[in-house]
Amino acid sequence: MAIAQRLERLRHQLAEKSLDAILLTQPETCRYVSGFTGSSGPAATLLISQESAVLATDFIHFEQARQEAPDFDVITVNSSSQRFTQLLSGNGKLAKVGFEANVLSVAEFRRLSEEAEKARVDMVPIEEIIDCLRAVKDEEEISCILRAAFIADTAIDFIATEIHSGMTEKEVAWEIEKYIRENGSEPIPFDIIVASGPNAALPHAKPTDRPISDSEPIILDIGARWKGYCSDLSRTLCLGQITKRFQTVYDIVLRAQLSALDGIETGMTGVQADGIARGVIDQAGYKDAFGHGLGHGVGLAVHERPRVSPGSTDVIQENMVFTVEPAIYITGWGGVRSEDTVVMRNGKVQPLTKAPKNAKPAEVC
Amino acid sequence: MAIAQRLERLRHQLAEKSLDAILLTQPETCRYVSGFTGSSGPAATLLISQESAVLATDFIHFEQARQEAPDFDVITVNSSSQRFTQLLSGNGKLAKVGFEANVLSVAEFRRLSEEAEKARVDMVPIEEIIDCLRAVKDEEEISCILRAAFIADTAIDFIATEIHSGMTEKEVAWEIEKYIRENGSEPIPFDIIVASGPNAALPHAKPTDRPISDSEPIILDIGARWKGYCSDLSRTLCLGQITKRFQTVYDIVLRAQLSALDGIETGMTGVQADGIARGVIDQAGYKDAFGHGLGHGVGLAVHERPRVSPGSTDVIQENMVFTVEPAIYITGWGGVRSEDTVVMRNGKVQPLTKAPKNAKPAEVC
Repeated sequence: MAIAQRLERLRHQLAEKSLDAILLTQPETCRYVSGFTGSSGPAATLLISQESAVLATDFIHFEQARQEAPDFDVITVNSSSQRFTQLLSGNGKLAKVGFEANVLSVAEFRRLSEEAEKARVDMVPIEEIIDCLRAVKDEEEISCILRAAFIADTAIDFIATEIHSGMTEKEVAWEIEKYIRENGSEPIPFDIIVASGPNAALPHAKPTDRPISDSEPIILDIGARWKGYCSDLSRTLCLGQITKRFQTVYDIVLRAQLSALDGIETGMTGVQADGIARGVIDQAGYKDAFGHGLGHGVGLAVHERPRVSPGSTDVIQENMVFTVEPAIYITGWGGVRSEDTVVMRNGKVQPLTKAPKNAKPAEVC
Repeated sequence: MAIAQRLERLRHQLAEKSLDAILLTQPETCRYVSGFTGSSGPAATLLISQESAVLATDFIHFEQARQEAPDFDVITVNSSSQRFTQLLSGNGKLAKVGFEANVLSVAEFRRLSEEAEKARVDMVPIEEIIDCLRAVKDEEEISCILRAAFIADTAIDFIATEIHSGMTEKEVAWEIEKYIRENGSEPIPFDIIVASGPNAALPHAKPTDRPISDSEPIILDIGARWKGYCSDLSRTLCLGQITKRFQTVYDIVLRAQLSALDGIETGMTGVQADGIARGVIDQAGYKDAFGHGLGHGVGLAVHERPRVSPGSTDVIQENMVFTVEPAIYITGWGGVRSEDTVVMRNGKVQPLTKAPKNAKPAEVC
């Protein structure tokens, strides 16, 4: 049902761009359009025209593709270079075919071009079509992300009762991951971040053997996955006595986040949405301490469109799902980040993650 | 120490190919050459010439890069499009710069070309240099892979004592993953495969809620990760009474694997090495049932060079690490795969994974 609708939207785009067909290889996009869950790495190549939908895969994935993508004609190819030949040749109807310029490598494109020339097909670079389709979620997708968000929320509740001074970052991360996996999540969408003290100044820190202590910031950044769909959630905790500096920074970040959650509306661009939170942080005197965008789309990939960041012209639309995650990072001291996954409903932000936003674990749960 | 040697080998290659510098973005390659462990996704761009080594990253990764890549000048860039400008401009010495044609997307290359034109730099597509350097491991790398192999071996011992009829594939997979993670592994390099009965006919099956039963094939394909380096190991088990068909297929696959482990020598091409195992399977009457290559290189990536498969002209060299994994798949019934990670030493194969190869779990442990 969902697949039929997605194919219809895609075909509408093809007609608009005067394309006879589109060639797709990006794994999450292939899953989105066909239902084929593939594996790690590119396992399928799709060719979709107004009349047909073909999925080319190798021997390894043939059975799986047939079961998962009933709306597609599944064919096998012996090697990845052959897939272009088999898909393009013998189809006299194709004159202009789109390809994902942001996905195909230069080397792959060179091979594709050779085959396209033989088949007299003009390959047209397409960057936006699929990413923009995927950015607006249907109800089924929103349900999946909500479920993934729920699992992440409960993991925060859980760890709030378990975390204590002396545990290492790695131990905390593994406790969270086990909880997430044992409460319904598929393999998690990204490595969990537990960053304590000075490590919290690294936005993408990896958990270390550092024991966490009282009175320092501890950033938890976690996600779960349900039927392929991701959630993304950060909270910053502080065990024991909260220092004045922590409280000050925490309050600014929280204020920035609440302003964005309250102020973002459909029709805004990414840079406008980002600016709401960034303005609060700048005004509080931390102008250079928030060195990444406010957020990013979340779906089958944990980072997708829309971009909610300085310079982004992406327009926030109804049923887009993305993160709102302002932060302040201070080298040597640490950092604070507060992140929710949200959906646009009736023109306004509706959070899908709902874990409490108190820095004291006891108050979190 | 290792980094200095790798840079030296790379610079030797640059001189051989008459390149002034090379631009690198592939995450595992960046880690290999610089020590920077990055994050998921491309976080760094390296530019290496005879005189200098520069690592460009964003604000998010700056601190981490400075700590992890002391042999590099670390610079920050505000956006990924700016990295090319900053790296190429103002450096009048560069006339010919190599780039990874199999890594950069068509869209990225378009942006790179614009900057290269402004800076009067000729960009030269390079596909092989780095992949071939990475294919031959140094002692430090082999130690890491051995440790990852050891963890996978012990996970097979462990699950042999736990697995029983009625457990679902997902339950078995999760027990294995927990064991691997709690015994020293970093996040595992690929989703564990537990494929039972007919599911074992899908080489890359995902674990399902299917309960495993007696007298059917159960393929376990698992890996661990140590300091970034992967292992890859498959065994096929059978609970309860072993059927005649299982025993027949199992014996052929095992014979094919032992022939390859015994027969592969340095100087052979990938297709020759593959042919040793494939010949055994073909002769036994299962010609079309082994539908993938015999193996693939293993290192920082779980799939890298050399390719050990039909059509591969890669030459097997001393200190290459790769898998040897013949298999037979029969639609409707299932399959058998036996896989080891091995290293070439003194011209011959030396297995790094050593889990027993008995189909009966009781005999495995």
